[in-house]
Amino acid sequence: MRIVALAGGIGGARFLRGLKDVVGPDDEITVIGNTGDDIHLFGLKVCPDLDTVMYTLGGGIHEEQGWGRAGETFAVKEELVAYGVGPSWFGLGDKDFATHIVRTQMLGAGYPLSAVTEALCDRWQPGVRLLPMSDDRVETHVRITEEGRTRAVHFQEYWVKLHAAVDAEAIIPVGADTAKPAPGVLEAIAAADVILFPPSNPVVSIGTVLAVPGIREAVVAAAAPVVGLSPIVGGAPVRGMADKVLAAVGVEASAAAVARHYGAELLDGWLVDEVDADAVESVAAAGIACRAVPLLMTDPAATAAMARTALELAEQVRR
Amino acid sequence: MRIVALAGGIGGARFLRGLKDVVGPDDEITVIGNTGDDIHLFGLKVCPDLDTVMYTLGGGIHEEQGWGRAGETFAVKEELVAYGVGPSWFGLGDKDFATHIVRTQMLGAGYPLSAVTEALCDRWQPGVRLLPMSDDRVETHVRITEEGRTRAVHFQEYWVKLHAAVDAEAIIPVGADTAKPAPGVLEAIAAADVILFPPSNPVVSIGTVLAVPGIREAVVAAAAPVVGLSPIVGGAPVRGMADKVLAAVGVEASAAAVARHYGAELLDGWLVDEVDADAVESVAAAGIACRAVPLLMTDPAATAAMARTALELAEQVRR
Repeated sequence: MRIVALAGGIGGARFLRGLKDVVGPDDEITVIGNTGDDIHLFGLKVCPDLDTVMYTLGGGIHEEQGWGRAGETFAVKEELVAYGVGPSWFGLGDKDFATHIVRTQMLGAGYPLSAVTEALCDRWQPGVRLLPMSDDRVETHVRITEEGRTRAVHFQEYWVKLHAAVDAEAIIPVGADTAKPAPGVLEAIAAADVILFPPSNPVVSIGTVLAVPGIREAVVAAAAPVVGLSPIVGGAPVRGMADKVLAAVGVEASAAAVARHYGAELLDGWLVDEVDADAVESVAAAGIACRAVPLLMTDPAATAAMARTALELAEQVRR
Repeated sequence: MRIVALAGGIGGARFLRGLKDVVGPDDEITVIGNTGDDIHLFGLKVCPDLDTVMYTLGGGIHEEQGWGRAGETFAVKEELVAYGVGPSWFGLGDKDFATHIVRTQMLGAGYPLSAVTEALCDRWQPGVRLLPMSDDRVETHVRITEEGRTRAVHFQEYWVKLHAAVDAEAIIPVGADTAKPAPGVLEAIAAADVILFPPSNPVVSIGTVLAVPGIREAVVAAAAPVVGLSPIVGGAPVRGMADKVLAAVGVEASAAAVARHYGAELLDGWLVDEVDADAVESVAAAGIACRAVPLLMTDPAATAAMARTALELAEQVRR
């Protein structure tokens, strides 16, 4: 079975680990990773979501934190602070720096991001084929107003520095309109037996992947059933601040509203948490098969069960 | 008093520390640093000699080693090895990486190396004005023959990887012929009251600085007395493998031969070690005032005494 999953960072990566636990040895997982939260820091190209997937599936992740490397040290960062070179709000560890150094060097030598990601995965052996959504630069910016002044900040600045404490007025995936899907992305979607939307951020993770011209259209046209898992449980994001960016696109922070935001054009099936069982009917009314099941990735077994249920729903809605 | 010193790495940096100890508060030291051993590693611009001077005079040097940072860690390097990305023979520590990251970012933003060096020195406060010999890229290559095959390798590969164990057949300062002295270099030489050649490598350190068109001519034309200190003591380099590169330019590894290599056109005075007292007469015969004094930088006091003697000799030969 060929499974394609669109993915953001922490939530997507953890779900994918559960998915790997339930697929068979002959199944192939292709992950189309969000690169809209990529950022240039200190002259280096940082791809937080790709790295979170790579480190999580490759066994290098800082488990409690969910991002970054286990056993990390911060000598480089401390030195940069000593040089007065910022930003200091983005937590790059020494091990992590090496990844960005290798990536930046390869990009500088002319390799596209997809080839660089493949090279990095040679080491990490994540057990999935990890593709960036695009080799072209896309950067999600967030429009905010502070003290009467409106400006657009990089998503990482909004998320990591400002902790999404300011209202997001608009989400702008800069460069997305002219970006092309990375090699293999459209082919993987077209050839998929199942397409999954993990419980990643529907706006700045999966939404950004879908904003690359051709990807949304490919998912809509795909023969495979498309099943998503709600990142909203009980009216709030399980992790992160998805409600903030949902508000910016006029979507209520509820499991049902996110399903309707994707819509029946994209989704064939949708999983909501048991606490959101009352959403099942309204989602079904929108033409999306819906089940209420436990959706908290509290441990590997719970995560694997979510993945198994998603695959079962995909079979049930297969046309 | 305005003192200008041409300098390489470890030997030059240690001598400069001694020089700082003996000058007065109104004296100004300008260091023209060799950049011929600069190398691009992992996409980063590394300037070993400039950094050795900066770290040594700024209090950040690894004292025993003579280069690199004190209290260094190597997480980034270990990760690069895990990625299979080399070379692994060049010992970059985590703290040191930060310097190269800042430098590379600034160069990428369009600042010349001289401005970058000044910015880095803002932190280190070396107490001297540190100028790269040139803002243009110059890379010293060494021609060697191994197993019947002749090739040119980067100086760092010759020095650090091969430990100069192969004969150097030629020293080629690639790019030197079209390089321009960095801003301030020629002006500093012209305005100098004293010009010093520390006991740095006469071929690949001071020789490379002098290979930048205009610098040798400026030293020759300078009104200031020029005094050098022999890096060769008792027929062998005090540190490093200077004999190897001296042989490549046809110069014997002796205190007298190095003086004659520079020549009376450049040098007004020359200090040799007491063990080389028999060289005094032949150097003097070449038109260079020569003194035999202790030339081992065994401790700060001994180094300061060397600097004081060099300044005294400069006064004696002042025309």
